Amino acid sequence: MNAADRQPEQRINTPNYSASGFVKVLAPGTVANLVCGFDVLGMCLNEPNDLMEVKLLQEKKIIIHSADGYPLPSDPAQNTAGAPLIEMINELDTPTGFEVTIHKRIKPGSGIGSSAASAAGAVVAANHLLGNIFPNKDLVRFAMFGEKVASGVKHADNVAPCIYGGITLIRSIHPLDIISIPSPDLFVTIVHPQIEVRTKDARQILRKEVLLKDAIRQWGNIAGLVAGFMQADLDLIGRSLEDVIIEPVRSILIPGFDEVKTKCKETGALGGGISGSGPSIFMLSREEATAIKVQTVMQDIYNRIGIDYHTYVTTINKTGVKILQA
Amino acid sequence: MNAADRQPEQRINTPNYSASGFVKVLAPGTVANLVCGFDVLGMCLNEPNDLMEVKLLQEKKIIIHSADGYPLPSDPAQNTAGAPLIEMINELDTPTGFEVTIHKRIKPGSGIGSSAASAAGAVVAANHLLGNIFPNKDLVRFAMFGEKVASGVKHADNVAPCIYGGITLIRSIHPLDIISIPSPDLFVTIVHPQIEVRTKDARQILRKEVLLKDAIRQWGNIAGLVAGFMQADLDLIGRSLEDVIIEPVRSILIPGFDEVKTKCKETGALGGGISGSGPSIFMLSREEATAIKVQTVMQDIYNRIGIDYHTYVTTINKTGVKILQA
Repeated sequence: MNAADRQPEQRINTPNYSASGFVKVLAPGTVANLVCGFDVLGMCLNEPNDLMEVKLLQEKKIIIHSADGYPLPSDPAQNTAGAPLIEMINELDTPTGFEVTIHKRIKPGSGIGSSAASAAGAVVAANHLLGNIFPNKDLVRFAMFGEKVASGVKHADNVAPCIYGGITLIRSIHPLDIISIPSPDLFVTIVHPQIEVRTKDARQILRKEVLLKDAIRQWGNIAGLVAGFMQADLDLIGRSLEDVIIEPVRSILIPGFDEVKTKCKETGALGGGISGSGPSIFMLSREEATAIKVQTVMQDIYNRIGIDYHTYVTTINKTGVKILQA
Repeated sequence: MNAADRQPEQRINTPNYSASGFVKVLAPGTVANLVCGFDVLGMCLNEPNDLMEVKLLQEKKIIIHSADGYPLPSDPAQNTAGAPLIEMINELDTPTGFEVTIHKRIKPGSGIGSSAASAAGAVVAANHLLGNIFPNKDLVRFAMFGEKVASGVKHADNVAPCIYGGITLIRSIHPLDIISIPSPDLFVTIVHPQIEVRTKDARQILRKEVLLKDAIRQWGNIAGLVAGFMQADLDLIGRSLEDVIIEPVRSILIPGFDEVKTKCKETGALGGGISGSGPSIFMLSREEATAIKVQTVMQDIYNRIGIDYHTYVTTINKTGVKILQA
């Protein structure tokens, strides 16, 4: 942890335990990057969600269970929910631990923030059981340790929107600077073609250097996208959803990508692209009816190609991880 | 001109001449780039201004006069006010021309949009005399020909804010996409050290490739800056005024730059940096008193270094080129 990321008031952390000592949360999927905002933008979804049950322990210990037979690492230090909780309990003044049961509904490797949901869900639930002593920014700081376990990189563009809800900008990681970007209500269609794209691989194929002229186009687009969200200018959002740097490289790993993008936009989607590092693809629409038509377009393409898939039609989740039962 | 930049309704351009056939305008200085928005952001200033007098001619001809003995090119095709007017009259259905007298108060090569003021002032004045038949976006398109004469590159990050006023984002040049970014009222302090930095030279020393990690940091900052302006979050504006790509290279051409920046921020400025391609340096402040203290800091530094300078304390001009007399 970078010392500069810590605030003085965080140094004494005495829990104010919840009475029941048990909580269930829904931890939502997220779309990182949002096309032109590689590594800095993310958006929270209302579907799909992991369901997590977290129990308070009166000893310094983290226990992880997988409820669905997914081969999640049971060693907490290697688990995306466990690693953030280890960081969290290390900052507490009292011996405290958590027992976590994960109902994994967001498939790992889908590109819609499966590891982030585990990490964010765990820390929001745990913080609830501690009497919400940590502010959201600290929860993001803890949850990033889960991303490090999952992908080797402590990125925040999934965990921040998962915790804050809505659309978030990670202006800076050191020091951590998270800005909530207001947005209009939009419909989101997602297709997850069931092929494996590992975040590590998707990161390794990127070039370390980019053309200045491409970088300029990219920062024109992210500035346009932020302005479009904040002014609820849907046409501007659509025009700004363009990525001249990452998408041309990563989309090669996703069969059918170009056709999905072209046909979904012809069908009325504002725009979209790779969700996170893929293979999922997301599209934004102003109307639910369009979002449903877009789903049919996606289904037709992957039926024809012969790749299994899941699709979702959902909306932007404005509140993040949801406490179900306290 | 890119055909895609033209709208169908612009194809018939019959002037609706003003009665007097004469107009005076104030054409303001502008700050391009705004630190992290290289080539895409610009801001209009209330000071300094060029004064321009434009007279309607009933023949297809452009005449340029310099009122102050500045050695401005008298060949209209080589003049930053003349080249845009040639483009404009070529799109008119009737034989029309303009006689322009320029009182050059914004020193060429200062980095605060001297060429843009001539170009923008000329087209806004001419359009006024034509009965405002061209929308602002067309005026920017014409004015960019003046920038091409001045620097060899058809950039819009000075002419757009000069014509639209306020802070503008040039999301794209082809097709031209200009977005006005609302901003809080801020004070601007500018120092123009009287050394020559030619835009062409300042552009040539830039590397053609940049590190992806630096580009990511830059687009995080521009997204933060746009959000900061639109939410009137002055601290966020200050944090986002960081340039890890252009400033480290270009600031080498400006004696005293690092000291000016550091001391102005210590004095209370939100932040700032190179204005356009330099050598002027601008600083934003929330209070006029701070902006004046910042001016003193700048003066002290260049007095000590022994370089002549001009300074300005001004505000953001929200309306652009001003019609003085119709």
